[in-house]
Amino acid sequence: MNQPPSALLTDLYQLTMLQAYVEQGMEETAVFEFFVRKLPPSRNFLVAAGLEQVLDYLETFRFSPADLEWLARCGRFSRSFVDYLEHLRFTGDVHAMPEGTVFFPNEPILRVTAPLPQAQFVETRVMNLLNFQTMIASKAARSVLVAGGKPLIDFGLRRAHGAEAGLLAARASHLVGFTGTATVLAGVRFGIPVYGTMAHAFVQAHEDEARAFEHFAYAQPDNVVLLLDTYDTEAAARKVVALAPRLKEKGIAVKGVRLDSGDLADHARKVRRILDDGGLPDVQILASGNLDEYRLEALMASGSPIDSFAVGTAMTTSADAPSLDCAYKLQEYAGRACRKRSEGKATWPGRKQVYRHYEADGRFAEDLVTVADDAQTGDALLRPVLRAGRRLAPPPSLAEARSHAASQLARLPDSLRRLDPAPSYPVKISQALRDLAKSIDERG
Amino acid sequence: MNQPPSALLTDLYQLTMLQAYVEQGMEETAVFEFFVRKLPPSRNFLVAAGLEQVLDYLETFRFSPADLEWLARCGRFSRSFVDYLEHLRFTGDVHAMPEGTVFFPNEPILRVTAPLPQAQFVETRVMNLLNFQTMIASKAARSVLVAGGKPLIDFGLRRAHGAEAGLLAARASHLVGFTGTATVLAGVRFGIPVYGTMAHAFVQAHEDEARAFEHFAYAQPDNVVLLLDTYDTEAAARKVVALAPRLKEKGIAVKGVRLDSGDLADHARKVRRILDDGGLPDVQILASGNLDEYRLEALMASGSPIDSFAVGTAMTTSADAPSLDCAYKLQEYAGRACRKRSEGKATWPGRKQVYRHYEADGRFAEDLVTVADDAQTGDALLRPVLRAGRRLAPPPSLAEARSHAASQLARLPDSLRRLDPAPSYPVKISQALRDLAKSIDERG
Repeated sequence: MNQPPSALLTDLYQLTMLQAYVEQGMEETAVFEFFVRKLPPSRNFLVAAGLEQVLDYLETFRFSPADLEWLARCGRFSRSFVDYLEHLRFTGDVHAMPEGTVFFPNEPILRVTAPLPQAQFVETRVMNLLNFQTMIASKAARSVLVAGGKPLIDFGLRRAHGAEAGLLAARASHLVGFTGTATVLAGVRFGIPVYGTMAHAFVQAHEDEARAFEHFAYAQPDNVVLLLDTYDTEAAARKVVALAPRLKEKGIAVKGVRLDSGDLADHARKVRRILDDGGLPDVQILASGNLDEYRLEALMASGSPIDSFAVGTAMTTSADAPSLDCAYKLQEYAGRACRKRSEGKATWPGRKQVYRHYEADGRFAEDLVTVADDAQTGDALLRPVLRAGRRLAPPPSLAEARSHAASQLARLPDSLRRLDPAPSYPVKISQALRDLAKSIDERG
Repeated sequence: MNQPPSALLTDLYQLTMLQAYVEQGMEETAVFEFFVRKLPPSRNFLVAAGLEQVLDYLETFRFSPADLEWLARCGRFSRSFVDYLEHLRFTGDVHAMPEGTVFFPNEPILRVTAPLPQAQFVETRVMNLLNFQTMIASKAARSVLVAGGKPLIDFGLRRAHGAEAGLLAARASHLVGFTGTATVLAGVRFGIPVYGTMAHAFVQAHEDEARAFEHFAYAQPDNVVLLLDTYDTEAAARKVVALAPRLKEKGIAVKGVRLDSGDLADHARKVRRILDDGGLPDVQILASGNLDEYRLEALMASGSPIDSFAVGTAMTTSADAPSLDCAYKLQEYAGRACRKRSEGKATWPGRKQVYRHYEADGRFAEDLVTVADDAQTGDALLRPVLRAGRRLAPPPSLAEARSHAASQLARLPDSLRRLDPAPSYPVKISQALRDLAKSIDERG
């Protein structure tokens, strides 16, 4: 994970097609676009994420000596092709929507323009990166929208699908408004604030719950957040009240308590009362345990006195939609627009641009998808980010991307902000694009 | 991914608890167990996987100089604690079910016995590895059981949750019977057979579909598998028939065709007829496109002449159950058995063993979970694998684990082999274990 993964993190067919392209001299300019065909049932919008990892990949991918040796030995590829791979670099251009941009089906969020072998080869990893982070950002944004500004923390690493999923879910959720993550390495890599409390095991390893709390407070005097539900939540809250004066004498303040099971709204009310009656009105209540946007919405609606939420597995796996119906499709080769017509999978051809129009109050009103050279009014959402294989500007900081995402979410129409399925946001297909599709179909 | 991920790929609370343990001198022996609380609704059994990655992690994890520097700078930890971390190694013992073993809820598949700080610290990554591979193996096994011996290929990398998920899904699916994967790096790392065909873009980049097929055949003469559904599946099959004699003159045989959209059973029948009538009875038909175990079962039941299947997103994300309700829980500390009593999350205490009993024909009959020192008849499923931080034997090859998984699946009761939910397999809790739980509850 410190090094970029091997260039062999790809589908075999990328290599077999590449060899065919090279042998046939098919190295003219190709245009591929990444888009989502349709929304998962429980999403009203998507949030673009993963672009920076894609650009890192495009700038740096190469076949290592070990990769080349494996390819030469595997018996499928010619020596001259392996030599060609040794020098293969990505030298093309990329246009993309900035991370944090809200988008909708049939709108490309990334357009790759490069010699065909390069543009084709990068498909697998580009999809792998964009599908995952976009899916997580789109899921996490729903929790952000219902949490009413209360802090959200990513607790998902243990059930994330491997190491990279855990790290990138921390990143994608922070991008759309999560306050921080429990994953230390995400703090190291991406500068995301890191949070943590204690596990039930910590309490169990002590013979006495109150002693466990006290030991933890001495070890982490600036971060005393105590887990209450190992045995009996309200009894544990009373132990915190009893302990607090002793800690105060040593200059240690209890910062918070965590509830992790049972009826969280009910426990929060009872614990709040115990803490308040015990002279601890400043101790915050963090809730965790199988939370998702629906439970957050219910907890918010109940008016329960929870101050912040930790969201884990449901967010980090996008449990109700663990993949996007996304594609990275050839749109043009050697100046000729292309269109796939497979049943149920037909796509709009050509290199495209997306224009967004706004209401008077700044909310999104309507998008228009058209061919790239059909200039229109409105915001052009796809912008040049890589030219001749190099970034045009240093990557925006994650904080900048986060601020962009926040302003995008603020401009969502109200119906799309809700968890219930909403009528589709209007995405118009331009006449120019329809004409292009028709001309290709007639060409046969 | 070439190097083990940083030791900071963990939850912050592992470090804060660790500091508290160390400061309090709580370094006596702890026993933690990993188990699944309950089956996902659409699973009748689980298959243990991920153990070898866990053992690699336990044998090799350490804090790098960069990790230590970050920890020293982050302001949460004392200098003496950071010095302690520099020398932290895993020196404990592990008992586990071999990879490929079928198991059920409340049965530990891994038991860690080590000084408390070590046994606690490894929780996050141990869970991250076991949850994912076990989930994938359990999902993929369902496709294997319905495919009636037809080859299955993993096509899931592009929508896997990041790099590690793609690689380990290839591994876990091969472990339970998938023939191979499209992911080249999984071939490099794990020796899994790698398969690939061509993408729609390859056909589209050519002005003429037949020329695309011909070019591909010249470039990959030993692996001519042609994708038929870019425009019109049956028309493409006729182009294959027309092309075949020309290729034969050059000594090239068409090995197969791939169908990727539409009514796969219907297309397969029509394409089979076209190929047979065209003198190509040996050309195999591979089907792909949003397949899962339910579609495989329907295609098998329809008697459609498909020879092999590629399964992607649904398997690689375990789409209908993208996480397991799993836990890594403290069972004993300093000789004292522990039990968590959180509402809805109570667990069986103490260090445990699982005994399996068989029918006369070798099928699984019943399991018994008991305390580790309560010797019983039957197969003891948890076996020692790591002692004092070192493997007791070299890891079994993936082929050996695969053969164990195959024999386990063959011994499943018929009702559990079906996709429909079956009555629970009997997992008995021994009287010794019930007595232990009772004594802990009485202790308070």
